[in-house]
Amino acid sequence: MALVRAARSSLRRSGGVIGNYASERDVFCEGISSLRHPTPIFENAVKGFNSSYIPNMQMINHLNFGNRGMKFTPQYQFPHAPAHTVEGSDSKHERSSYASLEATKQGEKPRVVVLGTGWAACRFLKGLDTNMYDVVCIAPRNHMVFTPLLASTCVGTLEFRSVAEPVSQIQKALAKDPNSYFFLASCTGVDADKHEVYCETVRDGRAFREPYRFKVAYDKLVIASGAEPLTFGIKGVHEHAFFLREVQHAQEIRKKLLMNLMLSETPGISEEEKERLLHCVVIGGGPTGVEFSGELSDFIMRDVRERYAHVKNYIHVTLIEANEILSSFDVGLREYATKHLTKVGVRLVQGVVKEVHPDKIVLSDGSDVPYGLLVWSTGVGPSEFVKSLDFPKSPGGRIGIDEWLRVPSVEDVFAIGDCSGYLEQTGKPVLSALAQVAERQGKYLVQLFTNIGKQNGGKALSAKDISLGDPFAYRHLGSMATVGRYKALVDLRQSKNDKGVSIAGFTSWFIWRSAYLTRVISWRNRFYVAMNWGTTLIFGRDNTKIG
Amino acid sequence: MALVRAARSSLRRSGGVIGNYASERDVFCEGISSLRHPTPIFENAVKGFNSSYIPNMQMINHLNFGNRGMKFTPQYQFPHAPAHTVEGSDSKHERSSYASLEATKQGEKPRVVVLGTGWAACRFLKGLDTNMYDVVCIAPRNHMVFTPLLASTCVGTLEFRSVAEPVSQIQKALAKDPNSYFFLASCTGVDADKHEVYCETVRDGRAFREPYRFKVAYDKLVIASGAEPLTFGIKGVHEHAFFLREVQHAQEIRKKLLMNLMLSETPGISEEEKERLLHCVVIGGGPTGVEFSGELSDFIMRDVRERYAHVKNYIHVTLIEANEILSSFDVGLREYATKHLTKVGVRLVQGVVKEVHPDKIVLSDGSDVPYGLLVWSTGVGPSEFVKSLDFPKSPGGRIGIDEWLRVPSVEDVFAIGDCSGYLEQTGKPVLSALAQVAERQGKYLVQLFTNIGKQNGGKALSAKDISLGDPFAYRHLGSMATVGRYKALVDLRQSKNDKGVSIAGFTSWFIWRSAYLTRVISWRNRFYVAMNWGTTLIFGRDNTKIG
Repeated sequence: MALVRAARSSLRRSGGVIGNYASERDVFCEGISSLRHPTPIFENAVKGFNSSYIPNMQMINHLNFGNRGMKFTPQYQFPHAPAHTVEGSDSKHERSSYASLEATKQGEKPRVVVLGTGWAACRFLKGLDTNMYDVVCIAPRNHMVFTPLLASTCVGTLEFRSVAEPVSQIQKALAKDPNSYFFLASCTGVDADKHEVYCETVRDGRAFREPYRFKVAYDKLVIASGAEPLTFGIKGVHEHAFFLREVQHAQEIRKKLLMNLMLSETPGISEEEKERLLHCVVIGGGPTGVEFSGELSDFIMRDVRERYAHVKNYIHVTLIEANEILSSFDVGLREYATKHLTKVGVRLVQGVVKEVHPDKIVLSDGSDVPYGLLVWSTGVGPSEFVKSLDFPKSPGGRIGIDEWLRVPSVEDVFAIGDCSGYLEQTGKPVLSALAQVAERQGKYLVQLFTNIGKQNGGKALSAKDISLGDPFAYRHLGSMATVGRYKALVDLRQSKNDKGVSIAGFTSWFIWRSAYLTRVISWRNRFYVAMNWGTTLIFGRDNTKIG
Repeated sequence: MALVRAARSSLRRSGGVIGNYASERDVFCEGISSLRHPTPIFENAVKGFNSSYIPNMQMINHLNFGNRGMKFTPQYQFPHAPAHTVEGSDSKHERSSYASLEATKQGEKPRVVVLGTGWAACRFLKGLDTNMYDVVCIAPRNHMVFTPLLASTCVGTLEFRSVAEPVSQIQKALAKDPNSYFFLASCTGVDADKHEVYCETVRDGRAFREPYRFKVAYDKLVIASGAEPLTFGIKGVHEHAFFLREVQHAQEIRKKLLMNLMLSETPGISEEEKERLLHCVVIGGGPTGVEFSGELSDFIMRDVRERYAHVKNYIHVTLIEANEILSSFDVGLREYATKHLTKVGVRLVQGVVKEVHPDKIVLSDGSDVPYGLLVWSTGVGPSEFVKSLDFPKSPGGRIGIDEWLRVPSVEDVFAIGDCSGYLEQTGKPVLSALAQVAERQGKYLVQLFTNIGKQNGGKALSAKDISLGDPFAYRHLGSMATVGRYKALVDLRQSKNDKGVSIAGFTSWFIWRSAYLTRVISWRNRFYVAMNWGTTLIFGRDNTKIG
């Protein structure tokens, strides 16, 4: 426990941008465009970067920056940070008694430790050459969530299981290879000098014991632990709002929605209370918020009218956004989305949330909005774990990386996905927290690890003078958002100021569904998603409330 | 709250039989036999019947007892019980202020109120003529659970949703008809004189308000509220064991099983702790216990070996039964089951549980059995709700009924399924708590209600002199239990002492699966179950741990 306490007490607060809720992840559409302007969008960055962590950084050799013919790899020169770990001496003592997976010996394959099971981690795990490396994955959940389809599961269009893929299916070595493992645990600290990570197992509800604590030695470490929803310190959000990032969140939203629908039929309930129970409020007009609102209004128009005939006129959806919905999309698409959402009955409100109570939210203009269901979707920021790490940070407080996705202040540590961002010194803007970015980084790192392995640089501290090949270059392939049945928006522009194809309506809906379907990793799940869509079309959505 | 408190404080304790765990529900196989000896098995009765509740009962007219040509229906003559309700005067006062669904007026259809959404209630709801009656269903869950397949969902052979059927799909009038409703609520009391039931809505985890309380007036009341697992007052069962009667239970078992599999891979964990975590103990050798053990050992042999290669030799299943497993089955089948379970690695232990601790059970001979997962399946007994009702009870403490499934001490109340049992005065033994019995009673009651409706007896207090037709006659069509992949037992005998066909092995497994498949009520679910079985065959079981 001392270890965790120490980790938490050393957190640094990073401020938050409260103005614009729209920037966030969950848009994904690789493969439908081939626009190739290498100008990634800078968005979703949260202020809070503290440059004192990298006082003496210099970049060596940036002449060949990005060139294909490069034969050696530039190094950022960092003085070693005073401590790359999170605990005081007390917990260090405690930690030394942890059971451990010892460092690999000579003649054994190098061990790659991966933290996380999101888009970045899973894409990396999927591609990693397990003849070259042993792999250990550590994460508090044993599956990847197919986030773009999560909104559909809340209303019963898709089953929960169809959007979750067990990590041992993605990388079978985790289950089968004698020296590869998956540990259901949270990482609580990293000692980059000792090449060790510290972990504790997750607790289950009925557990009567303390979690097990252990340490794992790594040759290479890939941090892909993701981000956390931003709540901007607004009172009551964690207690009363639902997020939409895990399958469990979707299950809770679904339960609450069905519960409220049924409760609103209770005899003697007032008109006002009925309106409140059936008022679904979504905060944040980014792709997730818009998609959830669209699915919800479709559910109301198609299923609620038939299955909850007594209360069908009481249910409403309100989408509250501080700025403009889908702010990163083309202006034409934004107008289309606004028009369409309004047409299907979603009330669009411009407002800033001041505080959240159990049955109402208070806006900054003092007005009250009573609700029965509140979904919070205002983008993501650095997690407590990331904040607790003493690595230099990117603008926005993410783990700082160079163009090879390395954490350049230490050896053998890489960071990908939402938890990482380019260091200011790279001259590149921090990439958006998008599935698309995470997936591309995972894929890139696979190639990098193959390069390293081939040059016998897999073991700890043995990759110093190795050529890593081309740095990671991100090409944005477009953004997508669905706004209800048969309607989706596809924005193929590289950045806000570019021009590109922007389509809307049935065609883009079809592209969206197809693009997503081929992204669900296993054939089992591709099959199930197709089945779910088919049966929903024929039989309507399922409305069983379990639990 | 006063109402609930009153209801609880008036409960009467009924004793329990602790010797034999094997008798229970969950076997179901109508349609594969046509044996017709009208000799239902008496089993699963719990002592505790207090005959002082029906002091002056006389049966009038039992001459035509059971004859087809009967033109009027015998009545048991009961003096009205002093109070048919559960509360004192205090709560009666409180209750009068409840919001209500008022009694039906002249010219309106009679209202049938159904308590429950199990086999009996749903079969009745499905068949009820809604042109003749309005229907209100009140239950704490909005779906029927296809109990015989529940064991398969714990290990991922079937998806949870495939075994649950929303009640509004079973009887569409509940969602659509202006005067029919489904209320997600528990019934807390019945006033048979006033023809009213008292209810409170279920709470959800995050609810910040008191539940809504309301009353519903009925013309006819059908109590089908089911039974509760028997724990025989053994310390620790409710805290540490899992039951297997709801989808939520199956979800919890699955979560715990996957959690323990993953935790057991934690570095540094002792051999002893690994053995404990992966020791699955099932208490009760009835069909559910045997089926769950079979599914589990199949899961271990097929999936664990492949997906949890590091710990495959540590996982074991033990089935503890006080007497003999499958005691109601033919001796040849019992031997087959014993042999087969032993072969697939299930340890069969004869023993009686004394108490349950968080990590071990203590048997009556003083020995300790450490466990990681404990499933309790020792049959069912009367629920607290049934105990709280002041109706005369059957042997075993269920709601006492006559051969027309009426509660004969009052007007217009019927009881079916596990919550009901023949009164001693009928001379018939209480039927087993089986899905088969419940389903047949629901079906019978549909016909009875059509008869009543046709004779204009649907309204309250208007069915006194109406001919009800033949009494309910139960013919046992056989029992089934599966003992793992491609192996099932089918016992077609009517009672323990009869002779009948008893088959085992692949043929009976096939019959079992087919019989179950056609019983899943909707085409949607039939389709999904077939899909689940197909994909499990091709891709293996799913091992995503959600939540």
